[in-house]
Amino acid sequence: MTNDEKASERLISEKAIQSFNDAPDARLRQIMQSLTHHLHAFVSEVELTEKEWFEGIKFLTETGHKCDGHVRQEFILLSDTLGVSMLVDAINHRHSANATDTTVFGPFYIDGMPERAFGENMAFTPGEAALVRGRVVDTRGNALPNAILDVWQTAENGMYSGQDAAQPFGNLRGRYRTDSNGYFAIRTIVPVCYPIPTDGPVGRMLNAAKRHPWRPAHLHFMIEVPGYKKLVTHLFNHDDPYLESDAVFGVKQSLQVIYEERFTHDDLSAGLDIQLPFRRASYEFVMESV
Amino acid sequence: MTNDEKASERLISEKAIQSFNDAPDARLRQIMQSLTHHLHAFVSEVELTEKEWFEGIKFLTETGHKCDGHVRQEFILLSDTLGVSMLVDAINHRHSANATDTTVFGPFYIDGMPERAFGENMAFTPGEAALVRGRVVDTRGNALPNAILDVWQTAENGMYSGQDAAQPFGNLRGRYRTDSNGYFAIRTIVPVCYPIPTDGPVGRMLNAAKRHPWRPAHLHFMIEVPGYKKLVTHLFNHDDPYLESDAVFGVKQSLQVIYEERFTHDDLSAGLDIQLPFRRASYEFVMESV
Repeated sequence: MTNDEKASERLISEKAIQSFNDAPDARLRQIMQSLTHHLHAFVSEVELTEKEWFEGIKFLTETGHKCDGHVRQEFILLSDTLGVSMLVDAINHRHSANATDTTVFGPFYIDGMPERAFGENMAFTPGEAALVRGRVVDTRGNALPNAILDVWQTAENGMYSGQDAAQPFGNLRGRYRTDSNGYFAIRTIVPVCYPIPTDGPVGRMLNAAKRHPWRPAHLHFMIEVPGYKKLVTHLFNHDDPYLESDAVFGVKQSLQVIYEERFTHDDLSAGLDIQLPFRRASYEFVMESV
Repeated sequence: MTNDEKASERLISEKAIQSFNDAPDARLRQIMQSLTHHLHAFVSEVELTEKEWFEGIKFLTETGHKCDGHVRQEFILLSDTLGVSMLVDAINHRHSANATDTTVFGPFYIDGMPERAFGENMAFTPGEAALVRGRVVDTRGNALPNAILDVWQTAENGMYSGQDAAQPFGNLRGRYRTDSNGYFAIRTIVPVCYPIPTDGPVGRMLNAAKRHPWRPAHLHFMIEVPGYKKLVTHLFNHDDPYLESDAVFGVKQSLQVIYEERFTHDDLSAGLDIQLPFRRASYEFVMESV
């Protein structure tokens, strides 16, 4: 590439960036100029061929055509598998070092699921019986009573209720509350790992890059306490084979729990409707004030 | 942002980039890693909010839904209006300084249009009569006989035949040849400026940024001579009000021509079926050998 060629290519990029100079909204201007700058930097760096550019156009078009109104959002899947969703999560949920880490919300939350009593079972499909116990506290360790924990996970077939018509309403979903000492108890099944949908362009991309589509087993939480930042996170099974290679980069070391096998009851399960043996995991969620 | 936060956000980007380490195709690996790097750099730089991220997801989804199989390609329009198409053109058509500059191909070319004789009229709809004359030469100035010039432009309503069912077949399209001295003559109408389609997400983006959708008046050329690089370019009317602000950044100074008014015939129009007065433009295309 000669200096002349380099200069004329740089001029194209500059003109494209400057075309947004008069955007009346300063934030829109900033976003479009930064996006255009980085998009051009990518094209210049790899010296994209016309054929590759057209493959990109076709990929984006198919990704759009794969999206429907409700069940499938292939662009979110693309954002997830490129790590963008997780980066946006990190940027928007910066928190003090001792508050609980966040992770991606994901597309499978359903609002308005049943309220469940302390220790109530939310699993209506088979699986390995589990009790998830713990506490919700502030950053100084004080109990937060009456916190609402909205919880969701897949059935053993890797599908969420709502996504899978065969599952009963509210299966593996529910809204729990902490008691007066900040404790909660969730009767469920041990989460399983599952693949993200691979029958679209994103699946083709993963396959071409020899990336697998699996997410490690996890239980979703959205925890709300008035006066505290809403906490959206997962708890991951500590022994999952995909912890190091989550297809959407959601894993954090601090969010791993052990589902230990229990052959006897103790204070933490006495009085709860759960048969021996079962598996038990514990976690303390630390909420940061707003 | 603390150093801890910065480090944990950088770690997400690194993991996403490294996820493509094992892509068996080296070029795919390079493209995906560069794309992921620059996409993350953009998100980090503007500290994209979750709401803005979701607006982006919706914008891309609507752009996909606006694409149909044939007539409308909204992602190409997005690439065009962000200057990416023009940058890809520049990267892929680097040429010696004295060869004719290239510009974008655009989506309106139709293959297999009628062959036309020297000076034949290709305009079957009204407009200001024009004669476009010139020569095709090599970089040393030698005439290139029998060069094929595939030519297309819009009618006065701003639409191309093929796009506009009201226009007759082959209107304002044709394949001309240079004569034994490298000369060509095209009888047509003076090109007009026209807006790119604005009824989709790209139109909304332009509007939000207070950018207009107009392309300056131009005549498309694709010129082929065996042994020479195929030349795809436009000739722009030198007095068009949108030369400095082409919605797709296609204009180059070297590609502007004057349609001068002619009240008499001379050697360049004698014998051609064209009534006085008319407008005449001239251009010498310089082809680079392969």
